[in-house]
Amino acid sequence: MSNIIKILGIHGSLRKNSYNKIVLETARDLLPKNVEMEIFELDKIPIFNQDLENTPSEVVTTFKKKIRDADAILIATPEYNYSVPGVLKNAIDWASRPYPDNSWDGKPVAIMSASEGLLGGARAQYHLRQIFVYLNMYPINKPEVIIQNAKEKIYKGKLEDAHSIEKIKELLNALVDWTMKLQH
Amino acid sequence: MSNIIKILGIHGSLRKNSYNKIVLETARDLLPKNVEMEIFELDKIPIFNQDLENTPSEVVTTFKKKIRDADAILIATPEYNYSVPGVLKNAIDWASRPYPDNSWDGKPVAIMSASEGLLGGARAQYHLRQIFVYLNMYPINKPEVIIQNAKEKIYKGKLEDAHSIEKIKELLNALVDWTMKLQH
Amino acid sequence: MSNIIKILGIHGSLRKNSYNKIVLETARDLLPKNVEMEIFELDKIPIFNQDLENTPSEVVTTFKKKIRDADAILIATPEYNYSVPGVLKNAIDWASRPYPDNSWDGKPVAIMSASEGLLGGARAQYHLRQIFVYLNMYPINKPEVIIQNAKEKIYKGKLEDAHSIEKIKELLNALVDWTMKLQH
Amino acid sequence: MSNIIKILGIHGSLRKNSYNKIVLETARDLLPKNVEMEIFELDKIPIFNQDLENTPSEVVTTFKKKIRDADAILIATPEYNYSVPGVLKNAIDWASRPYPDNSWDGKPVAIMSASEGLLGGARAQYHLRQIFVYLNMYPINKPEVIIQNAKEKIYKGKLEDAHSIEKIKELLNALVDWTMKLQH
Repeated sequence: MSNIIKILGIHGSLRKNSYNKIVLETARDLLPKNVEMEIFELDKIPIFNQDLENTPSEVVTTFKKKIRDADAILIATPEYNYSVPGVLKNAIDWASRPYPDNSWDGKPVAIMSASEGLLGGARAQYHLRQIFVYLNMYPINKPEVIIQNAKEKIYKGKLEDAHSIEKIKELLNALVDWTMKLQH
Repeated sequence: MSNIIKILGIHGSLRKNSYNKIVLETARDLLPKNVEMEIFELDKIPIFNQDLENTPSEVVTTFKKKIRDADAILIATPEYNYSVPGVLKNAIDWASRPYPDNSWDGKPVAIMSASEGLLGGARAQYHLRQIFVYLNMYPINKPEVIIQNAKEKIYKGKLEDAHSIEKIKELLNALVDWTMKLQH
Repeated sequence: MSNIIKILGIHGSLRKNSYNKIVLETARDLLPKNVEMEIFELDKIPIFNQDLENTPSEVVTTFKKKIRDADAILIATPEYNYSVPGVLKNAIDWASRPYPDNSWDGKPVAIMSASEGLLGGARAQYHLRQIFVYLNMYPINKPEVIIQNAKEKIYKGKLEDAHSIEKIKELLNALVDWTMKLQH
Repeated sequence: MSNIIKILGIHGSLRKNSYNKIVLETARDLLPKNVEMEIFELDKIPIFNQDLENTPSEVVTTFKKKIRDADAILIATPEYNYSVPGVLKNAIDWASRPYPDNSWDGKPVAIMSASEGLLGGARAQYHLRQIFVYLNMYPINKPEVIIQNAKEKIYKGKLEDAHSIEKIKELLNALVDWTMKLQH
């Protein structure tokens, strides 16, 4: 482990004004000392086709390298139809394939979700946790960042809710502690 | 309801020799009397972007019309990373959007899954069932068609396993009965 | 089907002032015309032991008969540790055993949940839905009655929240319609 | 941490010849060096009632102390109705209550399951994993010990299947490594 902890951030919606993109950018502004975060946009990742898994497009190769080089992963995702958005699951599927490796293998991970609905994307989080078992990723348990009624908390592209901001800080600290424990 | 029951079949893998494509084609060969099935291929469906949901590409419009026109849906899917493949979830997401309607609304549905693994895709089936709650689809409970060790049961592009074939017949009959009950 | 629809109501907490007991009693006060509801208390059901499944205690025999005689089931449950309370699951397990029958088989069912937490018991509802697949029960999809922050909505043993009451009415109507459709 | 790793083993069926009890006893016979395992039987744990949570019976107090004193937890469970048996969930619920503590908090954990069915109890395992999030337990990801067709693998009270035994050894080693990493 270098002295700097590198987090790779991804968000599960391609919408320009995505709440979850904003939540992820908020997290990037709140990083603890000695932590860096890069956000990787999923919009160029093609639809997965197993026949092409050993000849992936360059963007997939880059994505997998970014994951491999990260110390930890931070996912911010909406919930689509009570589960993980297809766009996010598709990117997860690409990066999980054995050529040249399941890039997620062994990574510490944390999840945030925001939605206009009353459950704040929680259902997507539990499906992601089941996915992590196969990927061999290690999620933190707490805090769970579940931002309900996101429309009222995000204003002009900024997350303005003090409680949510506090939770995001806690989550970042927990992810960093967890990452250091697992790397030891 | 016309006298003919129309099933729309979709499968969750783009692989050319996909087990689940073969399973779905097997089902098409085993249809009860007065039942038709069309298979819709998902390979042209683009990645979902909510900013484009009111101006979908033609293939999405066609897909939604096929769903709307069907009496029932039959899904054959592999399990990717202990959940629904991104490619299938992405297509579900598109067709669920309100422009011009959630095309899945009220449809009877059945699921089959095949995989090389020991659980035969079962984990993807339970995630799909949670998705159906939001989509307002009505899945049959039994039989569950879970084809384990698919590699040993599919030979030269044909499903050769008598037990699996029997289960598929049962599932088709159950789906037709269920569809007729719900349409009454 | 008789002219009267009989609902069996059960709640998943033994606490004397259980929110979910109150929610279930509220539903009983809001029944549509020609609908009856009996509430069965689970406190006497012993811990399940498969060695005793063919010689169940009298309370289990009575419980199974009540289920069998009902046209539909209504469950109100808290969420314990992100899942179904053990007390409720234990009762479900007893009534599912083949001696003399899986009494749940084929029953229409609806779920309500109330909790002090932000997710209102939703996680227990999705686990119940997976359980229903095996039991061969038919849950309604909508509305989902998820009563968040129950402490603020229940006052002196009464549910005082207009929105929740409206949702319960909708759920009862949906359950009755669903039951009639399935019995046809 | 002492030099000895102490595992508390629990199994989720009260049946005298429970497959999962046998699987747990098999694990106890296969412990790595410097590891001890005690099996705690759940048959005396009463049905949970929140009104009594601050005055638990002695068996609950003993159970919670055993959990607290353990370095890691090993659960062997059947699947009842596609989820965790009520008897096991009920015991989990008792030990999770705040008086005097959530005894599960922070514990490393591993799961095994055996059943006569084709999925070997897998569905119960994923529900348990969601429960662990709230309990703040840390499950290992791999290997997953899922013993399908248990009837053919267990003979005169002994697990006789070489593959399953190998998997149990791997799981024990993984649990010990994980426990040491988390305690560091």
